[in-house]
Amino acid sequence: MKVLFAITAWLAASLAVAAPHSIRRVEPPNWWTGMAGSSLQLMVHGDRIAELAPTLAYPGVRITGVERTDNPNYLFVNLDIGKDAHPGELDLQFRRGQQTVTSHRYRLAPRRAGSAQRASFGAADAIYLLMPDRFASGGAANDQAGMREGANRADPVKRHGGDLAGMRARLDYIRDLGFTMVWPTPLLENDQPSYSYHGYSLTDYYRIDPRFGSNAEFRDYVAAANARGIGVIKDIVLNHIGTKHWWMRDLPARDWINHGNSFVPTNNQHTMAQDIHAAPEERARFFDGWFVETMPDLNQRNPLVARYLIQNTLWWIEYANLSGIREDTYSYSDKDFLNEWNRAVAAEYPHMNVVGEEMDARPHMVAYWQKGVVNRDGYRSELPTVMDFPLSDTAPEALTEPETSTRGLIRIYEIIAADYLYADPMRLMVFPDNHDRPRILAQVDNDVDLAKTNVILMATTRGIPQVFYGTEVLIKSPKQRDDGVLRADMPGGWEGDKVDAFSGAGLSPQQRDMQRFVRTLFNWRKTSPAVTQGKLTHYLPRDGSYVYFRHDGRQTVMVVLNKNAGETTLDLARFSGMIKGARRATNVLTGEAVDLGAPLRLPARTSLVLAW
Amino acid sequence: MKVLFAITAWLAASLAVAAPHSIRRVEPPNWWTGMAGSSLQLMVHGDRIAELAPTLAYPGVRITGVERTDNPNYLFVNLDIGKDAHPGELDLQFRRGQQTVTSHRYRLAPRRAGSAQRASFGAADAIYLLMPDRFASGGAANDQAGMREGANRADPVKRHGGDLAGMRARLDYIRDLGFTMVWPTPLLENDQPSYSYHGYSLTDYYRIDPRFGSNAEFRDYVAAANARGIGVIKDIVLNHIGTKHWWMRDLPARDWINHGNSFVPTNNQHTMAQDIHAAPEERARFFDGWFVETMPDLNQRNPLVARYLIQNTLWWIEYANLSGIREDTYSYSDKDFLNEWNRAVAAEYPHMNVVGEEMDARPHMVAYWQKGVVNRDGYRSELPTVMDFPLSDTAPEALTEPETSTRGLIRIYEIIAADYLYADPMRLMVFPDNHDRPRILAQVDNDVDLAKTNVILMATTRGIPQVFYGTEVLIKSPKQRDDGVLRADMPGGWEGDKVDAFSGAGLSPQQRDMQRFVRTLFNWRKTSPAVTQGKLTHYLPRDGSYVYFRHDGRQTVMVVLNKNAGETTLDLARFSGMIKGARRATNVLTGEAVDLGAPLRLPARTSLVLAW
Repeated sequence: MKVLFAITAWLAASLAVAAPHSIRRVEPPNWWTGMAGSSLQLMVHGDRIAELAPTLAYPGVRITGVERTDNPNYLFVNLDIGKDAHPGELDLQFRRGQQTVTSHRYRLAPRRAGSAQRASFGAADAIYLLMPDRFASGGAANDQAGMREGANRADPVKRHGGDLAGMRARLDYIRDLGFTMVWPTPLLENDQPSYSYHGYSLTDYYRIDPRFGSNAEFRDYVAAANARGIGVIKDIVLNHIGTKHWWMRDLPARDWINHGNSFVPTNNQHTMAQDIHAAPEERARFFDGWFVETMPDLNQRNPLVARYLIQNTLWWIEYANLSGIREDTYSYSDKDFLNEWNRAVAAEYPHMNVVGEEMDARPHMVAYWQKGVVNRDGYRSELPTVMDFPLSDTAPEALTEPETSTRGLIRIYEIIAADYLYADPMRLMVFPDNHDRPRILAQVDNDVDLAKTNVILMATTRGIPQVFYGTEVLIKSPKQRDDGVLRADMPGGWEGDKVDAFSGAGLSPQQRDMQRFVRTLFNWRKTSPAVTQGKLTHYLPRDGSYVYFRHDGRQTVMVVLNKNAGETTLDLARFSGMIKGARRATNVLTGEAVDLGAPLRLPARTSLVLAW
Repeated sequence: MKVLFAITAWLAASLAVAAPHSIRRVEPPNWWTGMAGSSLQLMVHGDRIAELAPTLAYPGVRITGVERTDNPNYLFVNLDIGKDAHPGELDLQFRRGQQTVTSHRYRLAPRRAGSAQRASFGAADAIYLLMPDRFASGGAANDQAGMREGANRADPVKRHGGDLAGMRARLDYIRDLGFTMVWPTPLLENDQPSYSYHGYSLTDYYRIDPRFGSNAEFRDYVAAANARGIGVIKDIVLNHIGTKHWWMRDLPARDWINHGNSFVPTNNQHTMAQDIHAAPEERARFFDGWFVETMPDLNQRNPLVARYLIQNTLWWIEYANLSGIREDTYSYSDKDFLNEWNRAVAAEYPHMNVVGEEMDARPHMVAYWQKGVVNRDGYRSELPTVMDFPLSDTAPEALTEPETSTRGLIRIYEIIAADYLYADPMRLMVFPDNHDRPRILAQVDNDVDLAKTNVILMATTRGIPQVFYGTEVLIKSPKQRDDGVLRADMPGGWEGDKVDAFSGAGLSPQQRDMQRFVRTLFNWRKTSPAVTQGKLTHYLPRDGSYVYFRHDGRQTVMVVLNKNAGETTLDLARFSGMIKGARRATNVLTGEAVDLGAPLRLPARTSLVLAW
């Protein structure tokens, strides 16, 4: 056996020697003229490529330097692409002395017109979050596509076969529901042996997973969405990769991955980013530890890693024409790198919005990461949008627990009252549920009325609402978080599904009602200046209801979150400062006229949205 | 009867008329030369005094103006006291035209040498909080002293007769326990018909309640404390007065009290101070509403009210030679006034520390009020010290609940980890219990070991520790807050008490042990540079213990908060970054030597403080 191993190793070494200096990859795979920044760094991967020196003759483009690491199979080539450079193909020659050993043709494409000034997502939008593997399938032909893991719909933690073709075919549905943005969880290659369905274990930063489709199909999907007035937000992972990422077979540098190539878990203690008292070794453990054993942690303090990730983000925005970025496990990455990354995005796309995930229920912990907040430790984040986990985590408990002086609706009120901690509360992403939370119905003990109230809250409070696919048809899950299960298949996303959320076929009356409710609410929301741009003024919860107003001078919207089990009435005199003598309003969910001159009738467990 | 009433009313009116322009009060009752500020405003109260004009001839002192309100019985006289003014008596003449109608001799005393530069309390101190009515009595002779309410020790909500003479006789006890500051709850006159024992319903801002003693006795008490190395912190109430305050019989101005003279309760919603979305009428209700029906709310937006309160604070510091200020119900007062008040104190006493009570369990809510914090809404508080209610409220729950990933000791860790929110965590007042919390033993389910752990935490974490009287002898209370009961009489404070905490007579072995523990801990603390000045570095709780270090380069203190019910050992390798090769330490509570080269033995439910 020992002999056999030795021969195998010798053969492998010989094969490597057999093709010296052949280039396996150059990343980014192309670039553009007309970018704001002129510098570009190419990662060139090839056997002993570092022994060579690149040359180039192309008007307006020059090599400003090369960087090498402790691995001779990588060469980093720094280019300057002048304002006068025209689109075309660079002929990169890799030489030993005067002799060209190998070469690579590198394409400079023309930048899309208006690309830099593109609009992004904000409080005027509503975001539909979907998980590509679980939303809709365009057919089973690409279910394995040469990757390690195939599809098995019967198993909640296996792939189910959703793809870009399925997503594209359902864009009208999303548009008709009233959403203006779609956020698919990551679509990049995850060629992992298992748990590849969720997409957060990238194995290639530049390739759409072939089980979802191709890069071109993703670009076409974005174009098809745009044609329907829908922007696409790309879910990006900067903190870690998957163990089967091609880098793991030939690390670009010994310090490319934190803790070398071995698994040391993060302590998941988010306060390490802020805590002035944290023991240094525990702080390092948080940032450098791996998220899970299958997700090696990138060392963004290595400038080559940082540069690679930054260019990758810019590449996808430009290539696919994205409208926004969502960044995963935000606080786990290096804090300085995160700011550098955000600044680089803003430098190329000044209006681009980026939302980072800090999964913490304390407003001050989330606010720490929002751009414009001056933190006591001197850190000033560059991240424009943060996720309102405090509100999302509080709302279901507040809606289901009994009302006391410290529990119930007052807890929602208190979260909103903490908005002074944020630089811009309108740039909070608010959501009744997402892919890391039990389904909305489970969170409110399967009470559809409370689920609706939760959606009303997220659709009408300050910020940018985000709804998880299937919330509109009341997909169920256990109350305890169970990822594979809560990320259930969207009914009708697969041929032969008996229930079809898209056509409505087979939906229960309750599901139909919920779908209609969501459609009415979000289509109305788009037209409401008060909700999408106005101020928020709220009143202390009392007698089982919480009343707030959105108002912008043109329109007033009055929201009554109502938990009362029986019909009650609400005396409007207390709100005269906001109602200001208005006599009639419209119930935006029913279209009915409402008299503001009399006590307001609150049907049992029904929340109201009134506008005038 | 009606006739009798009418005659009485006529007589009363006649009597008032009979003594026109007689001066009833001038406040402050005196002032000093040599103050940093030269202006002084006298409140003069007398029948129709506003009809007159004051004159004065005194070298270096002049009248700069007078202010009148809608009540002719008040005249506010603005003086400028020049640097060249000598101590002496001003002869204030109140004239109609050229005729002096009445006069008042006003004393300018010489300022105490070094008064302005006096030291105050900080992290090097430990504060003993006591309630004068419940701590010790010098005898029953002054138990009523002409006030409405007398003493009845049998009733928890009635007065019990403690006084300054009793307090003074027990100063050695407090010194011997290791405390360097004493904070008595308010001593000013509370001539209310009931609930006067707690002292927060002032009826005279310039008079010590005669049931406690006289102004001079208070001044003597401070001097006696100072002679023992103990400073005195005065408990001040700026937000409200008692319904029997003399102002309430003749309000200085119609807007002197919020909501005129009628009771409208505050909504007690502390977030009103920060909330950018609060309805204006609800915000006003918080600040202007009365704390309770017997506590009229002062309108500090009236500059005469503000000036009166500010001068009153300065007067007591100077008169009694105070070492610190504690301000009650801090956030309920006008925010701008609070800053003005703090600035005025700092202008006269640059090193004076002031602690404000914001009773809220959220660090960001408390941090909002600390000087140096730049709040998003632009508010920059001038208050140096805030009370760490987040830690006090969390610790007992954390110590008693089972350890999970989100409960138990991690909650203490998380509160400390939020210190980045404060401008100066060393200026947090930390306390195991106080007069508004159940007794320490009740909070930890009557577990003396956990009570000790809580005291160790407060004595060794960052900040300024404060201990409530009787904690050292394990005074009991229900777990539900019951003010009259938790503010129990200190055993031995009254003649004939069978148990005497001061002499030790009649204490149970458990009480003696606790008292010895407190005495050892706080006497040691005084000598520890690491605890009183050093940094804090903490490690994530693990296996039922939470370890942190205090260190200043000269000394290292290792604290192990240990909840384990059985004996365990602690592997010290994890803390090598702080232990740095030290081999031996001293257990400061037992005096025993401890080997740091071996796993540390943790006796059951025993927390350790090791120093080297």
